[in-house]
Amino acid sequence: MKISQNIKIAVDAVVFGYQQKELSVLLIKRGIEPFKGAWALPGGLVLENESLEHAVERELLEETGVTIDYLEQLYTFGTPKRDPRNRVISVTYFGLVSPNHFKISADTDAAEVQWFPIHKLPKLAFDHNLILTTALKRLQSKINYQPIGFELLNQEFPFSDLENLYQTILNQKIDRRNFRKKIMSFGILTETNKIHQTSSGRPAKLFKFNAKKYKELEKKGFHFEIKFA
Amino acid sequence: MKISQNIKIAVDAVVFGYQQKELSVLLIKRGIEPFKGAWALPGGLVLENESLEHAVERELLEETGVTIDYLEQLYTFGTPKRDPRNRVISVTYFGLVSPNHFKISADTDAAEVQWFPIHKLPKLAFDHNLILTTALKRLQSKINYQPIGFELLNQEFPFSDLENLYQTILNQKIDRRNFRKKIMSFGILTETNKIHQTSSGRPAKLFKFNAKKYKELEKKGFHFEIKFA
Repeated sequence: MKISQNIKIAVDAVVFGYQQKELSVLLIKRGIEPFKGAWALPGGLVLENESLEHAVERELLEETGVTIDYLEQLYTFGTPKRDPRNRVISVTYFGLVSPNHFKISADTDAAEVQWFPIHKLPKLAFDHNLILTTALKRLQSKINYQPIGFELLNQEFPFSDLENLYQTILNQKIDRRNFRKKIMSFGILTETNKIHQTSSGRPAKLFKFNAKKYKELEKKGFHFEIKFA
Repeated sequence: MKISQNIKIAVDAVVFGYQQKELSVLLIKRGIEPFKGAWALPGGLVLENESLEHAVERELLEETGVTIDYLEQLYTFGTPKRDPRNRVISVTYFGLVSPNHFKISADTDAAEVQWFPIHKLPKLAFDHNLILTTALKRLQSKINYQPIGFELLNQEFPFSDLENLYQTILNQKIDRRNFRKKIMSFGILTETNKIHQTSSGRPAKLFKFNAKKYKELEKKGFHFEIKFA
């Protein structure tokens, strides 16, 4: 290669979770300079021989203790001065988890790790606020045409959790009756015979997402699609 | 940065055009090793202080003579062995042009430049066939919900060109009557008073895409959306 290049490659992860009825994101407190003490997305430099996907899974596990099955590539951020040390290009990923399934614990370059509600975010290191906003927009667009919301919920959930999840992600009130009608019409939710005691004392049935049924329907040309006027 | 890294960053561009009723892609013949003499996507290494967007526009201009207003980031390809020389991560972009507006001419690392119909592609260097397939899928999905097809046509076009464009991109027959009805119902095409003489001798009105009207409608919550069963 005839031109010399001194650019580093990093990966960063935006991991969304849903807890206490709020959409949250997994952040680490930086234990090293630059931005030591600031909150940031988990991530770090790619090792010489690992794939980008491996790099982001490794960094996430090292810095937060979270193992994630599916991370989707979000966008590559490469503005020349985004890192004060050196030119660093970051290939970013986003993923969805149910926070209850993980015990988070900081290590390596991370001094602390914490879930932050999306509406109460601190100022982040580097351009990480921009990365997070990009991921949030992708999530907001994607939940309308793919049943990815279920990955954020417990395996069995009262319908009101799903409703509230959409409301919090889209940051808008939704017409509950139409939403329920629409979702139920897809036939991808299975009613369990378990009952959940709501805080108001009213019992509510628990539902499960039927991934097998969804795959069958998808093969037949079914499109999951929710529209909010 | 505590770890040493010897990874290079490149950009590659998938530029689609529409000519002689076929969707085409702009390829260069490599003038240098590796894959000397093979066809490939235009692209190259990012310079130390330029943005990724600048890099891809520069490479495209250098290697093909094409200036493009809007390139959208597609995906970042980073499999460790994708380049035989060195580890190279490629941030890829895709764009749409009307080929009539450009005179293509090869230079720098490109020995030749040519438009190839999408259904008659040669085997490409590196993982460029995979990059191209990824771009094609993005285009096929995107023309259903954004009026990007017009960027591929002349400014004034007979309706049959738009119809044929969708058929060639989606690689399927479409119901012409429903398609026309749907598109016309959006109110984003302006009828000019010019007439186009078709090869069959039947005169056809020319249309123009009304970008201003589209933007107005979009602000009011209008979604461009075409569905093919």
